[in-house]
Order: sequence, then structure tokens, then C-alpha cells
Amino acid sequence: MHHVRFRDPAGAVRQGKWHGDAVSFGGETYNLDEVDVLPPCEPTKIVCIGRNYAKHAEERDETVPDRPLLFLKPPNAVASHGDTVTLPAGKENVEHEAELAVVIGEQCRNVAPEDAESVVAGYTVMNDVSNRDDQDIETNWVRGKAFDGAAPLGPVLADPEHLPDDASISLRVNGEVRQDSSIEHLIFSIPELVAEITTYMTLEPGDVISTGTPEGVGPLEDGDRVEVEVEGVGVLEHDVRQV
Amino acid sequence: MHHVRFRDPAGAVRQGKWHGDAVSFGGETYNLDEVDVLPPCEPTKIVCIGRNYAKHAEERDETVPDRPLLFLKPPNAVASHGDTVTLPAGKENVEHEAELAVVIGEQCRNVAPEDAESVVAGYTVMNDVSNRDDQDIETNWVRGKAFDGAAPLGPVLADPEHLPDDASISLRVNGEVRQDSSIEHLIFSIPELVAEITTYMTLEPGDVISTGTPEGVGPLEDGDRVEVEVEGVGVLEHDVRQV
Repeated sequence: MHHVRFRDPAGAVRQGKWHGDAVSFGGETYNLDEVDVLPPCEPTKIVCIGRNYAKHAEERDETVPDRPLLFLKPPNAVASHGDTVTLPAGKENVEHEAELAVVIGEQCRNVAPEDAESVVAGYTVMNDVSNRDDQDIETNWVRGKAFDGAAPLGPVLADPEHLPDDASISLRVNGEVRQDSSIEHLIFSIPELVAEITTYMTLEPGDVISTGTPEGVGPLEDGDRVEVEVEGVGVLEHDVRQV
Repeated sequence: MHHVRFRDPAGAVRQGKWHGDAVSFGGETYNLDEVDVLPPCEPTKIVCIGRNYAKHAEERDETVPDRPLLFLKPPNAVASHGDTVTLPAGKENVEHEAELAVVIGEQCRNVAPEDAESVVAGYTVMNDVSNRDDQDIETNWVRGKAFDGAAPLGPVLADPEHLPDDASISLRVNGEVRQDSSIEHLIFSIPELVAEITTYMTLEPGDVISTGTPEGVGPLEDGDRVEVEVEGVGVLEHDVRQV
């Protein structure tokens, strides 16, 4: 099943079912243009992974890390499917990064890799919007990665069985393919990431691990329409505005 | 007034008044040993400032940054007054950092320095517990700064008028003074920090800006008793356990 959180025409927040061109809850079906699609979960934190595809590390002139490179996006960064993301003002180089995102299902700590599956509620899609002007010069990537709208997330939470082991991951800007790879190229696997992160921190239900981006990152500009697709999970769409 | 969140003997969470050796709510007064003191706020994020006192930058062999050095602690890092913080396992060098923490009172974005006062609910005290083993080798300080218990916070939220401009800030381990300075040595002022952070991110009520630590940071070990004091605000106490 593909789960979707949405605000129905009466304004109530619903946890319903996604049908591609419609959503349903409690016996009622709505066209997508009748509802507001909300982020599929409400993370207390998004733990992101840097350089988790070798070809992306290469295009950024970086080496592959010997353990997962972690960074954080707080709740203010979350945006929804269908939102217009306002890029931080006055920045020259803000880029897209297509990512498979893992949604945590239960509070957990010190999870062994072999038990990681049991704490994963399912998968969604994220664009790790990255302000390189600041990222490239700051010690921690806060201005670079944690600004409002830096984490468009959605549209659905897909049950784990929908994600093929070699799922394709791609990103289009105004219909042009910019990123096109497969999650089989992940350097650190999802169980390894869950284990490493929970060695240090408790994850809560709805928390997100965003697994890193493949090669092909590139600039976003005012008016761009972005689609991020993970095979078996869905297509996240959002617009971009530069003020 | 000094506000305190606590769990009363019946288990109810109360927002009451702090009297030093007792707390009160709704006409009832309790001794401290009858209640659980909770963090004075529930941050969606803690935005921390690195190297905001020149002598601390110096002792870490670092330069003073030309704009605030930002990093993040998520909600999992929060610990309470009176808690026992478990240090991350297997680390050699985990240190204390006494900090004045600003508690945000309302949702805000793009706050000018001259308006910063209006979004500050008050002040509390934080120990920015820092795992140097990882901090010193990772790109973003996540294992180093965002582990469970890395942000003991409290015991009170002090109304702004209680904080003198030259408030002393100090930290004792097992009664021995380790840090002893004044907030008048802050490089970036609180209004400057609020303005810089809200240029990039929305702050929510209860969010915390931790303003950085003065010189004198040093190791924490199993069994240590830590007291962090900010004049006019209060004394945060917690214990340390190394498994």
C-alpha cells in the first residue's frame, strides 16, 4: 500500500490511501486537486547521508567516506509534494539532490543491521535541496542544508515491499532528466545506516533517514518544476521560486 | 519570574514557578525531591553557536569565525536538570561546554536585530556535551554533538529581565571550577544570532539558540557531577555515566 497524509476539502488531516490520481479515506475518494497533500510523516529530525554514491562524491571532487557522512535537517526544512520551495535569497548556486528516504516506524536505539528492517515503516522520496554558496564554506552544513524548504518530502509512504533492491532513482527539471541511477549503487546500505545512526541517537516514529544522492546534481532556478522519482515508491513534484 | 516544567507526584506535567528549593503550580507547592524537573521547553531544534568566545576558539586551536558558526542538536539530545547523561560508548574524550541558552517565544523568520528581543521568551542554561573523538574527524558534528543526552537543559526558563548584560557563566565538575567567564565576551550578540539564524530558518516557540561556550572546556568522566550556572538564570545540574 501507498499511504498519503492529506488535508481534505473540509480541512481535516487524513491518513489515507494513494491511488496515483486520487486519494481516499473512510470510504471517500478525492481528486488530487481537491486536497492538500501533506508530508507523509512528521519527522523530529531528518538524518541525511552525504556522498553515499561513488559517482556523486566524484562529481563534487570528494572522496568516498570510510563511514557514513551524517548531517541534519530539522523540521523547518520539510516541504510537501506540490509546494513551491523558495530558495534562500541572494544565493548563486542552489542544487537538487534526488534521494530515497527511509521513514522510521518505531522509537529505536542501538539497532543491529540484521534488525533494521523491523524499525522501517516504509519509503518516501526527498529532494535534498542544497545551497552550495554556504555549504562549501561552512563548518557544519546548516545554512547550506537546513533552510526552510530544503527537504521536499513525499508524496507517499510506500510499504517496504514496494521498493525493488535495484530501484531506479531519477530527477527531472522541467521534464529534462538530470539524475538517473539505481539504489543498488548505495555505498552504505539502509541496514548499515540504521545501525550506525542509532549507535548515537534515538530515532522516533516518523523520523527520516535520507540515503544520499547519485550523480547528476545541478542548479535550480526560479520557475523550475522538479520531479523526483524512486521506482516502486512514487514521484515527488515541487516548484521552485527565487525571490 | 523563573518558570519550570515538572511532573508532579500524580504524574501530571505542570508549567509552574521555581522557588530554588521548591516548585509550585495551582496553589500547590512541592519540594524538588517530590517532582521530576523537565526541560523548560520542548525544542523542535537547538541551533548552537561554535567559537563564540575568543578564548575558547583559542584553546581549541581555531580562529574566530567571521560570521556565526552554526550547528544543530535535534530533540533526542535534550536531557533534564537532575538527569544522568550516558556518554557515547567507547569514546576517550567527551567534554563539557557551559552555555547561555535563548528560548524562543513565537514562530519567527527574518527577524531584524532590533526586533530580536520581541521573539525571546527568556533564558535557560545548557551543557553542550561534546564528543571530541568524533567531532574532530567528522564533516558535520552529528556523532560529536547530536547524540542522546548531548544537551542537558534547564532547570528554568528565566524571564529576560533576570539576565544581566555582564552575567557570569561558570561550570563546576565535582565542585571544582572549570569554566568561569561572562557573557559580555560573546562575539556575536543574541540579536545578531537571532537575525542570522532566521535569515535561513523559521524558529518555533520553544526552540533554543545556545550561544557558545567560554574557555575552560574539559573532560567528563563516569560518576562526574556537573553544575552549570548563569547569573540571574540558574544552576543546571546533571550527572555523568560512562558505560
